[in-house]
Amino acid sequence: MSQAALIRDLGRALGPQCVLAGDAPGARAYLADATASRGVSGHADAVLLPADAAGVAAALAFADAHDIPVTPRGGGSGYAAGAVPHGGLLLSVERLTGAPQVAPERWSLRTPAGVTTATVRRRAAESGLLYPPDPGSLEQCLIGGNIATNAGGPHTFKYGVTGRWVRALTVAVMPGRLVELGHGVSKDVSGLDLRSLMIGSEGTLGIICAAELALVPAPEVRLPVLARYPDTASGCAAIGAVLASGAIPAALEYLDGAAAGDGGFVVLAEADGAPAAAAEQAARLREALTPGATSLQAPSTRAEISALWRWREGLSLAITARRGGKLSEDIVVPVTRLEAAIDAVGEIGARHGLEACSWGHAGDGNLHATFLIDRDDPTEIRRAEAAAEELFDLAVALDGSLSGEHGIGTLKRGAAARLLTPEVIALQAAVKAALDPKGLLNPGKKLPARPVSAHAGASPTQMADGVAGGPTSGA
Amino acid sequence: MSQAALIRDLGRALGPQCVLAGDAPGARAYLADATASRGVSGHADAVLLPADAAGVAAALAFADAHDIPVTPRGGGSGYAAGAVPHGGLLLSVERLTGAPQVAPERWSLRTPAGVTTATVRRRAAESGLLYPPDPGSLEQCLIGGNIATNAGGPHTFKYGVTGRWVRALTVAVMPGRLVELGHGVSKDVSGLDLRSLMIGSEGTLGIICAAELALVPAPEVRLPVLARYPDTASGCAAIGAVLASGAIPAALEYLDGAAAGDGGFVVLAEADGAPAAAAEQAARLREALTPGATSLQAPSTRAEISALWRWREGLSLAITARRGGKLSEDIVVPVTRLEAAIDAVGEIGARHGLEACSWGHAGDGNLHATFLIDRDDPTEIRRAEAAAEELFDLAVALDGSLSGEHGIGTLKRGAAARLLTPEVIALQAAVKAALDPKGLLNPGKKLPARPVSAHAGASPTQMADGVAGGPTSGA
Repeated sequence: MSQAALIRDLGRALGPQCVLAGDAPGARAYLADATASRGVSGHADAVLLPADAAGVAAALAFADAHDIPVTPRGGGSGYAAGAVPHGGLLLSVERLTGAPQVAPERWSLRTPAGVTTATVRRRAAESGLLYPPDPGSLEQCLIGGNIATNAGGPHTFKYGVTGRWVRALTVAVMPGRLVELGHGVSKDVSGLDLRSLMIGSEGTLGIICAAELALVPAPEVRLPVLARYPDTASGCAAIGAVLASGAIPAALEYLDGAAAGDGGFVVLAEADGAPAAAAEQAARLREALTPGATSLQAPSTRAEISALWRWREGLSLAITARRGGKLSEDIVVPVTRLEAAIDAVGEIGARHGLEACSWGHAGDGNLHATFLIDRDDPTEIRRAEAAAEELFDLAVALDGSLSGEHGIGTLKRGAAARLLTPEVIALQAAVKAALDPKGLLNPGKKLPARPVSAHAGASPTQMADGVAGGPTSGA
Repeated sequence: MSQAALIRDLGRALGPQCVLAGDAPGARAYLADATASRGVSGHADAVLLPADAAGVAAALAFADAHDIPVTPRGGGSGYAAGAVPHGGLLLSVERLTGAPQVAPERWSLRTPAGVTTATVRRRAAESGLLYPPDPGSLEQCLIGGNIATNAGGPHTFKYGVTGRWVRALTVAVMPGRLVELGHGVSKDVSGLDLRSLMIGSEGTLGIICAAELALVPAPEVRLPVLARYPDTASGCAAIGAVLASGAIPAALEYLDGAAAGDGGFVVLAEADGAPAAAAEQAARLREALTPGATSLQAPSTRAEISALWRWREGLSLAITARRGGKLSEDIVVPVTRLEAAIDAVGEIGARHGLEACSWGHAGDGNLHATFLIDRDDPTEIRRAEAAAEELFDLAVALDGSLSGEHGIGTLKRGAAARLLTPEVIALQAAVKAALDPKGLLNPGKKLPARPVSAHAGASPTQMADGVAGGPTSGA
């Protein structure tokens, strides 16, 4: 099919206002995500902007009928190139909008996939409720993308990642049908847990169109404590002291000396809850964080506390701005190996001649291990990519994993093949083949690329490289 | 293969000490579960008692090589006949024991599948930590079975069901291999979430051999509040008041008038946490529960509190004892429909000439809807089964689901076919076929029985009835 014919037929199937040619000026913004800061971009034959869930299902039916791959896209804030297309159709869910409907009496909210996470949180807050996941990109990222990547955030330590808050999903699946997975109740064992299987699958099994989310009464008080230490060892000892204290912090974050900018190590913990509970927890946090600290700050006014978290949220951009670009990987290790991991990030950077730093979700053992780069210097980008490979080896060596929240996308598929055994890769491929027999959903993403032969499931080798069986369309 | 030859070959493959003939006197205890109280039992050609995970995998390899179905079994406390075999091999994980290993510094515990849930909780408590799920059968049920059914308990309301606490699983999968799903870290998006897919799959996708579980600092104080109301309407209004109060109770339970035995409606809420936090929450609970209450009890000594929870935990047995047997289904509805559901349970019982009552996890909308029966009266059992079918219709009509924690097993497969759309049934069948191509793992359980044709996945119709493709062995 020529591209002109493709655009014409898509327009007939979905409505012309939902279809952009892949080379149209307005299409360009849909072909890259946050990995543009490390030089990654893609291309597509067409960009689809369906207006509702039925339109998403119709797009999948079209893709199935014509054997064209589909790359789903949320807010484009991903760090793993999971939404970057390599031909075929790019499908954005950004027009699946409408006000989230809150049911405060049952701590629940229903929302289309194209609503930003910040909007979801504001809607919940209007009813005195909290939707806890708070990824750094929450004003940009869409709730559908958060679910597809199982996004986290600083308050994941107490509240858990996105998946914990998903009660039910409306998902478009192959060959172009809408299914409801889960029943909007807080516990349910009435079938295989396909809802959880969809969460974090990065669009390789279906496209999330709407969700019912659980909420919880919003904490009335937040009391952060910011402590500084002379070095990584004393900072990590303080993190261990918090975990041994009996306190349950809402967040437990760190910045290493290079990220903090002044050579010291920063620990940011937060107590939250009703007033007496938050005060009680904050006292325990201060006590645990005091030994070895060179300073301790405990802001108590709303303005000070907001400023502190704005600083924390702006950290990623501020660090990027130091040299214009960065390559950052969010490896995760057992919290007892955090110090070893932080030290190793610095050593890996030094070996590759790169400025390195890390910060992140200490309580979860989740580092944002970062190499600063000049994005216009291809040799530096290549050095950073080589350094990133060593980060993945490090995560495996420390009994950890490749990504706590950013996902595998395109960029970490090779590393996933090193982390996962052939048997697990084969099981994943069999499940992928079961739900997407033609391999059209986000091909080349998430699932390890190497061929496998360990399992007698449904054609795992056919699917193992995640590439569509059929040819892509276009010129 | 004759049964004698089967037993001989199994003995050679697994060791004779791991194999019992299905008609041996010692085998009988393995052929029924808690549904014996409603007259359900099964039969098997052999009972397997492997001593370790490798033995479980070897048993699956044997089953695969000879096309024999395998029914996995934990502690036998299930209410859905999920562990009741219909021929083939019954595989108990009860010998997969050994002391759970606690890593207190990272709030984690590793345990074999054959350890009781109570033992897991005690081990965690020795380190000042809590493994929160607390199903009523916790001294009998095994942690592997809890994971396979995604068990709940009274404190699920605050702490979530079993699945929330599972970091990694060692699972025996077809055709007889051990895989590790998850990496023992608190967040991880490095692959498709096959770990969550296994949780609650009732042994239809693999057999859980070991688990790494997350723990949390144990609450220092528990402060229950028990309130009595004149009727269901005023009791449910109080439950709504708790949910609107901003409090986050650790548990929020109810007993209807028939379950309480005196015609009044009982609400049991509990605050927990550090001392000031628990006191603050308990005050809010008392305030929310006071309007309309005829009495309010707030026990404060450890002995009184333990006695209260022992009474709650003994409720199921005490109610069973009233007439010798009961049929109980744990339907779940949005909490806003709780009153309607409780009233309807009584009406359904009356229509079928059965004494009915309900109690359960009010905050989760999870009823233990119960009909008392004389288990020696087959006509009464049949009437109760007809009444149970109406319970399932009720759950569907109230936008709820069939089971919050007990599972689908054998007994609810027909109801699952009414709840789930053909598309969802087809997706489940495709996933089942991907992981268990021969359909040997717990056939006839969990997945709806009716044939489907909605999806082009891997042979869904072959798998939809969950029955093994190959013949069962034995005489």
